[in-house]
Amino acid sequence: MGMLSEGLTQVLIPAAALVGIAFALLQWYLVSKVKVSGDSSGDYSDKLIEEEEEGTDNVEVSIKCAEIQNAISVGATSFLLTQYKYLIVFMGVFAAIIFVFLGSVKGFSTKSEPCTYSKGNLCKPALANAAFTTLAFLLGATTSVLSGFLGMKIATYANARTTLEARKGVGKAFITAFRSGAVMGFLLAANGLLVLYISIILFKTYYGDDWEGLYESITGYGLGGSSMALFGRVGGGIYTKAADVGADLVGKVERNIPEDDPRNPAVIADNVGDNVGDIAGMGSDLFGSYAEASCAALFVASISSIGINHDYTAMSYPLIISSVGIVVCLITTLLATDLSEIRECNFFALPSEFTLFNFGTEKAVKNWHLFFCVTIGLWAGLVIGYTTEYYTSNAYSPVQDVADSCRTGAATNVIFGLALGYKSVIVPIFAIATAIYVSFSLAAMYGIAVAALGMLSTIATGLAIDAYGPISDNAGGIAEMAGMSHKIRERTDALDAAGNTTAAIGKGFAIGSAALVSLALFGAFVSRAGINSVDVLTPKVFIGLIVGAMLPYWFSAMTMKSVGSAALKMVEEVRRQFNTIPGLMEGTVKPDYANCVKISTDASLREMIPPGALVMLTPLITGTLFGVETLAGVLAGSLVSGVQVAISASNTGGAWDNAKKYIEAGASEHAKSLGPKGSDAHKAAVIGDTIGDPLKDTSGPSLNILIKLMAVESLVFAPFFAAHGGLLFKFL
Amino acid sequence: MGMLSEGLTQVLIPAAALVGIAFALLQWYLVSKVKVSGDSSGDYSDKLIEEEEEGTDNVEVSIKCAEIQNAISVGATSFLLTQYKYLIVFMGVFAAIIFVFLGSVKGFSTKSEPCTYSKGNLCKPALANAAFTTLAFLLGATTSVLSGFLGMKIATYANARTTLEARKGVGKAFITAFRSGAVMGFLLAANGLLVLYISIILFKTYYGDDWEGLYESITGYGLGGSSMALFGRVGGGIYTKAADVGADLVGKVERNIPEDDPRNPAVIADNVGDNVGDIAGMGSDLFGSYAEASCAALFVASISSIGINHDYTAMSYPLIISSVGIVVCLITTLLATDLSEIRECNFFALPSEFTLFNFGTEKAVKNWHLFFCVTIGLWAGLVIGYTTEYYTSNAYSPVQDVADSCRTGAATNVIFGLALGYKSVIVPIFAIATAIYVSFSLAAMYGIAVAALGMLSTIATGLAIDAYGPISDNAGGIAEMAGMSHKIRERTDALDAAGNTTAAIGKGFAIGSAALVSLALFGAFVSRAGINSVDVLTPKVFIGLIVGAMLPYWFSAMTMKSVGSAALKMVEEVRRQFNTIPGLMEGTVKPDYANCVKISTDASLREMIPPGALVMLTPLITGTLFGVETLAGVLAGSLVSGVQVAISASNTGGAWDNAKKYIEAGASEHAKSLGPKGSDAHKAAVIGDTIGDPLKDTSGPSLNILIKLMAVESLVFAPFFAAHGGLLFKFL
Repeated sequence: MGMLSEGLTQVLIPAAALVGIAFALLQWYLVSKVKVSGDSSGDYSDKLIEEEEEGTDNVEVSIKCAEIQNAISVGATSFLLTQYKYLIVFMGVFAAIIFVFLGSVKGFSTKSEPCTYSKGNLCKPALANAAFTTLAFLLGATTSVLSGFLGMKIATYANARTTLEARKGVGKAFITAFRSGAVMGFLLAANGLLVLYISIILFKTYYGDDWEGLYESITGYGLGGSSMALFGRVGGGIYTKAADVGADLVGKVERNIPEDDPRNPAVIADNVGDNVGDIAGMGSDLFGSYAEASCAALFVASISSIGINHDYTAMSYPLIISSVGIVVCLITTLLATDLSEIRECNFFALPSEFTLFNFGTEKAVKNWHLFFCVTIGLWAGLVIGYTTEYYTSNAYSPVQDVADSCRTGAATNVIFGLALGYKSVIVPIFAIATAIYVSFSLAAMYGIAVAALGMLSTIATGLAIDAYGPISDNAGGIAEMAGMSHKIRERTDALDAAGNTTAAIGKGFAIGSAALVSLALFGAFVSRAGINSVDVLTPKVFIGLIVGAMLPYWFSAMTMKSVGSAALKMVEEVRRQFNTIPGLMEGTVKPDYANCVKISTDASLREMIPPGALVMLTPLITGTLFGVETLAGVLAGSLVSGVQVAISASNTGGAWDNAKKYIEAGASEHAKSLGPKGSDAHKAAVIGDTIGDPLKDTSGPSLNILIKLMAVESLVFAPFFAAHGGLLFKFL
Repeated sequence: MGMLSEGLTQVLIPAAALVGIAFALLQWYLVSKVKVSGDSSGDYSDKLIEEEEEGTDNVEVSIKCAEIQNAISVGATSFLLTQYKYLIVFMGVFAAIIFVFLGSVKGFSTKSEPCTYSKGNLCKPALANAAFTTLAFLLGATTSVLSGFLGMKIATYANARTTLEARKGVGKAFITAFRSGAVMGFLLAANGLLVLYISIILFKTYYGDDWEGLYESITGYGLGGSSMALFGRVGGGIYTKAADVGADLVGKVERNIPEDDPRNPAVIADNVGDNVGDIAGMGSDLFGSYAEASCAALFVASISSIGINHDYTAMSYPLIISSVGIVVCLITTLLATDLSEIRECNFFALPSEFTLFNFGTEKAVKNWHLFFCVTIGLWAGLVIGYTTEYYTSNAYSPVQDVADSCRTGAATNVIFGLALGYKSVIVPIFAIATAIYVSFSLAAMYGIAVAALGMLSTIATGLAIDAYGPISDNAGGIAEMAGMSHKIRERTDALDAAGNTTAAIGKGFAIGSAALVSLALFGAFVSRAGINSVDVLTPKVFIGLIVGAMLPYWFSAMTMKSVGSAALKMVEEVRRQFNTIPGLMEGTVKPDYANCVKISTDASLREMIPPGALVMLTPLITGTLFGVETLAGVLAGSLVSGVQVAISASNTGGAWDNAKKYIEAGASEHAKSLGPKGSDAHKAAVIGDTIGDPLKDTSGPSLNILIKLMAVESLVFAPFFAAHGGLLFKFL
């Protein structure tokens, strides 16, 4: 048995979560010391002012920033609250579906049944599992929504503060933006862990020794978290990119006014979009990944010797990885990286050897094997991250080549950008394949789940670096709108360019972990559905595989078309305002911001439903009509195809964005020869950037959720499909 | 046993091939009656002249056309001959690899071995199989090269004739272009069948009753055909698109001169490219598909009860399908479509029931099952064809929506175009999945191979309609260069627009059949490698699956980057000539065409090697280092992912091309509101068209070859991998 006692485990996990929350609150306190109200000028007197200042004590600027911040915050809050109204309806309907489908597995019987794995013991009735899965679903969904909402609140609290700090230099602005990101990262990671931990404790009071039923029900937590994340990402992504594309096409291309110029009617919608799309969507998304990875690991462990022998500490190993992850992130936020803590945790938590069920056969695993799984997950994440940086940062030749191709116009820019995205898939896929092979060989599907948790153990820091990009972007927007000096904008732009790359790295981690998580969930689904092999050579599986590989395209077609259509409407509205409101171009009259906000809101709420339905209904329909083998094929197909589409879309978009920034910054001789702003090459770069927007911020990141969500949904509904699925083949 | 006697079969197949060849020669004779030399004016006097004529009897125009035709033909011939020098080296090296690898399976032993399937009989030594496979490879490669070369010769013979006929109306021009396409279609289909038939007869003189060895060796024919097709498609695709993109970017976008204007230095390279890329590449490609589908079907049949019982007529069923296909195509070219002939052939050729080996188990198949397989292949091809038409013809709303999105610039055009391509994948994938499920359920992998042959039985007509697009395109170019009236150009443009759609339909058939062919080859490979299941849940298979799904992206990245780089060089050269040659823009001085031809030639020869190496080496390296399970995963992954990339790339490109043509033609109120040529919307459409060029004519169609070629190569090398493969895992 492991060296960590049950009591200590019960203390360690909530303690880590609480430490994370405390750290987040401390960071929040530090951010809040930057005042944005009019009376703040006094505060700056006692601070080190590093550079020549402009307008530091200008009360008017501070008031204006506060106003703009308020407008963005009100817009974002109002959008999210409207979106949540839709989501509550969805949650209710889907909760009912879960309860009815899972309840029907044993005909709504309330009798206890013999356990599947823990031979000779009695397990709770299927109806109880249905009820608790539904409850877990609702808990996961609520936590996900809360994560997104909190993230948005933090970001809209931090954006103007970052702007004001930028007056004191880029370092100060960075600290504020990064601290705000850290608030979000630690709060979400700790909250996710805590809610999951408490749910397990509470469910245990009913389930007692029936760990099979307990951890089956807990999978609903992952499903809830992930389904909310899907709507958050898709809805938010459409919102932000419709506004962004619309604002750029008229403002930058036609009217030649700078980005975020207050004369642009879509500017508020654009800035609101950053918060509801990039921030709230990403918060929900990473929470979903974390919840799913934990559920996959817990479920696989529950049907291993660990679960059957009721080794509580070993069972909690996935939660312990996350706990240690929070503590390590906390230390690295303060100091430097160190892997040793996670290694320690293997030897304390796990028995020296245990047995896993590997699709019909048993597999003996030693505890140090899992250390390698966690480590290889982390390393694969790093490799993906660095590759992403190489292909999307304008410090390296790929982005510079793309920028150079703008010389001959938008067409070559697009051809080079697409080629770059395709190429950027190669190394990450080899990294993922290596991680899968090693961790699977060592500890079967449990190894994969643990590798995913290893990758996600950095979630707190990952979210922090992910979030500071959009915060800086917003800060730049506020500087522009408040009419602050050009210098401030340059500083926030520098942060934003770095943020583009860190965001791309974050997306790399997200995609890598999504691949591992969905494979682990896929394995769990197959175990639970009671099939022993998924043979590509059977027609049922193969048709699933090829149709599954098609789903990411179908999904991307929907989201890209949605962004395109909404952007067209936005363009027409912005053009209309410029053409019909006298004095708008001269800056004497304010545009009608609200109309643009309404276009983005309506488009995103309406357009998030079809792609959402595609993802949520595919496993249900496939499982019910075609059965578990075809569904297994669909999951494998969408996984191996979706990863490629997601990586290439994200990196192509990131590269175009930074190629444009490279030309704008003009930091080298080569860059200068392509610029300045407004040159033909720059115009070509702007077109690429605009095309990349829906790729990198709507389609790409949503595909992560697609592959995970379909897998976790299949896992939750597996008993139903196994009992009643495959109607069509039965009928034929 | 079937009702068709062995003797009759031996007559029927070569007879059909000879009829096909005779028909092709007859069409050629009809085309040749259009004279392009100066003395041709007399010829027109006795023909019905339908419309008002301009310059019909203008001897000078005819001479000029002959000159241009000659320049294009010389350029194309010289390029292909240079390319073939490289290919001969490749053929030699690869033939040696095949011989050494396959010879080493039993340590170059010359002893006969017990047969694998035909229990109790002796089969020829592995060394003989190695020698005959090498021979078959060389035969296939030579036939493929010949097919491409013949196609090019026919097309360059027909282009100026089409131009001259266009003076008498669009109908006459259509007949000439279509007849020339038919020459190519029938010649290639008949030739492919004949060489394969003769090879089997000759090989049989050595193999005698050892049908396992005989049909194993014959698979080399498919490998040879397909590997040449790869280089033809990739090299030709890079050649044509570098010239096309380069010519358009400077000529149309910067200099505002029409397409194919003789002042454009890249114009000859562009027209040569149509013949070496679209025509020669496509000829090799479809021959490769046909050869592979036949080899897959023959190999699967040889290890079924048909092969073991030595039922010659039933064994020849795949060849009979192709023979009947040629005859049916011949009749439909003259009359209308009729399926009944193929149905008859089932009952005549096959025993009423026979047994197939289905990965370790046996499966009984009735002969009428195969009728359904052929039929569902044909139907799936039609569904894919019609879907492709819907998404790429400007008569329907998808292309019109894309055209409409040009209103807001190139960015929305690209976003809508990409979304259209993604969406166009849905229906074809369902059609392919249905065809696979039905034909697999009825007759396992033999059913799939037969369905593919059903789809390809229309190859002669398919090639004809495919080829007439590029011929018309060339005809238009010649009209422009010869300074003929605007009206002639309008007529060839109408043919070309229709040709875009028929080409897209042809590509749809090509992709659909490629999916079926490679699945059949995949099945044959698995049988030959002696594995009974390809279980996604084993890590060896899964890493293969995810890496295989990545290969189409790697390959596309290479080809698109190649086109992009070559186009950049072309742009610089064209710009240089416009800037430094005085009198060029005024049309008083001729440009230096040869320099542009050289740029395209050098780029395509250099750049075809890396993607070619990727495709040819992947199965060898994977099989040798990782073994047959991982290779099986790679094949399945590249198949399910490559199909999607290929369909979406082809259709996106086709849609952009026709959206541009839609605006240019201005045939409706809506189209007029976007035009005319030179408007902002039109400029945006031209950018989309340019981006689509490498997608639809380089990457997309090459991917078909990628998935088939890797499968057939794996099949050929299967005994080696089974005997010596998986070194890396053995070492670990």
